Amino acid sequence: MTDTSAAPRGPLDDYRNVSVIGAGVIGASWAALFLARGLTVTVTDPRPDAEKQLHDQVHDTLPVLRALGLPVTDLTRNLRFETDLDKAVVDADAVQENGPEQLDFKQRIFARIEEATRPDTLLLSSTSGIRATRIAEAMKQPGRLVVGHPFNPPHLIPLVEVVPGERTDPAVVRRAVAFYTALGKKPQVLHKEAPGFVANRLQAALFREAVHLVAQGVVTEQELDSVVTSSIGLRWAVAGPFRTFQLGGGPGGLPYFLKHLGPGLESLWQDLGSPRLDQPTVELLGEQARGDESIAVLAAERDQAQIKLMQALGQTPPDDLAPATR
Amino acid sequence: MTDTSAAPRGPLDDYRNVSVIGAGVIGASWAALFLARGLTVTVTDPRPDAEKQLHDQVHDTLPVLRALGLPVTDLTRNLRFETDLDKAVVDADAVQENGPEQLDFKQRIFARIEEATRPDTLLLSSTSGIRATRIAEAMKQPGRLVVGHPFNPPHLIPLVEVVPGERTDPAVVRRAVAFYTALGKKPQVLHKEAPGFVANRLQAALFREAVHLVAQGVVTEQELDSVVTSSIGLRWAVAGPFRTFQLGGGPGGLPYFLKHLGPGLESLWQDLGSPRLDQPTVELLGEQARGDESIAVLAAERDQAQIKLMQALGQTPPDDLAPATR
Repeated sequence: MTDTSAAPRGPLDDYRNVSVIGAGVIGASWAALFLARGLTVTVTDPRPDAEKQLHDQVHDTLPVLRALGLPVTDLTRNLRFETDLDKAVVDADAVQENGPEQLDFKQRIFARIEEATRPDTLLLSSTSGIRATRIAEAMKQPGRLVVGHPFNPPHLIPLVEVVPGERTDPAVVRRAVAFYTALGKKPQVLHKEAPGFVANRLQAALFREAVHLVAQGVVTEQELDSVVTSSIGLRWAVAGPFRTFQLGGGPGGLPYFLKHLGPGLESLWQDLGSPRLDQPTVELLGEQARGDESIAVLAAERDQAQIKLMQALGQTPPDDLAPATR
Repeated sequence: MTDTSAAPRGPLDDYRNVSVIGAGVIGASWAALFLARGLTVTVTDPRPDAEKQLHDQVHDTLPVLRALGLPVTDLTRNLRFETDLDKAVVDADAVQENGPEQLDFKQRIFARIEEATRPDTLLLSSTSGIRATRIAEAMKQPGRLVVGHPFNPPHLIPLVEVVPGERTDPAVVRRAVAFYTALGKKPQVLHKEAPGFVANRLQAALFREAVHLVAQGVVTEQELDSVVTSSIGLRWAVAGPFRTFQLGGGPGGLPYFLKHLGPGLESLWQDLGSPRLDQPTVELLGEQARGDESIAVLAAERDQAQIKLMQALGQTPPDDLAPATR
């Protein structure tokens, strides 16, 4: 036997056992990432085919995890499936919830989870739209819950929006940030619970104008996508919108930029469209999206390009975040 | 003497001499790109210090051109400066105009340029906001003019929005696309003259919400930039917004996505902000943008990352677009 008592503590040593609520696409992606980081993962989901779906979906993440440089040999060795919720979370150091986006469901499940777990178990919800403040209303210790909203899929895209509720304990926020950072993620704490948080609001704002331009016949979907990937997409992968305009201002920075181009921006804002996703628009968008290649092939191509890009930017997991020692 | 009569024709052989109107940041960037592609470039600008500014700015593009793999040795060998507009364009195969964004200026200058050039000289305007239809109103042959709006800076970012006016000759549009493609650019023809064209409208739409979120205190500028570069920016460098949502729909594609997430998107649209760039907002944005590092250092870092990313995606100039044979 090897004496490992002197091994240095790794950043994930406080989170050896993680429970994942919900075996859908997001839950399975989280599970795969946790496993690749050396954690023991217990997944629970009441649907009859959930365990098989989970294994299929975890299997589907292997090419991406491998390309990211994460260890995938015998990945499901530490994966458990447990239909009983209380049993699934009893030993958890952290719980990542990915159930239906319904307030009453989330309120009920977290009220149960807080009873079934230790007081220091980190309670995280992947919700993209429900505030922690509301979910925690049914909890005895609302300070324990924080939103950890991943940008899909969590095993690939770095961002996690960490969104505290009004009663979330600041220490819980700090622990959530440390947990996600140790997983190689890029957590960002938000200061207010804006509906849709930040990334989805920005995405919705751009998509609204994209729908308008396609509906008006200025460009097709494919043409608009090509405009984005050959201009603003390239820019925003490297520098966000504020940094981009700051540098666009030259030595005078953002104040110079806003002074000279602000009026033009404001007049463009007046001209932006307000489309509805009504039946004719949805049909037009669906027709233009039709193509010869299968979605699976397109998705695999996109993922490979995504990883190349992230590697070029040094955004793939650093080596010092390898699985913690056992 | 070497007999070069049998050399194969290159894609830029019809455009040996290019004239650039205006020696500002955009004009100098175009000039540098044209030079790096082996063209002879004549720049005109009435400002007294324009020639020196031009050389300084072309010099500033060298690190980027070199990193892109373009030849930069003795780059300004074929660069001419000519204060007289008529002389500057008389031998031009193509003219790229980058003057002030004023309709009367552009109308006057293109009316003169069409007289001073051959009938087959390609006439291109870099305007970001004025329609070719309006500029061409003062021309005898309005069919000759087309907008070729670069995403800044043109020597680095691939997109050129090619925007015909109502009377632009379709053959001129095709030639503009061929010219920009031969330069290693990514031209995209728009079907209508929307104010701000496409890329700037999309950028403005996202930036409006970004300003709203910062003004509301949901995130700081730096935090919002970090959200973008760790999520949607990474995505949109690889796949535009429509492809992203098409793949987000799984096997059901965009129709499935819109059916299930469309209502949520529409309700987010209702909640997006409509900020103004009033004095308090401009001051807040300016304060948050303040940092210790100089704009020049930040810009150089951004450019290096930009080039790495483009290389990873194969978006840097392909080898077969090397300067045409002389």
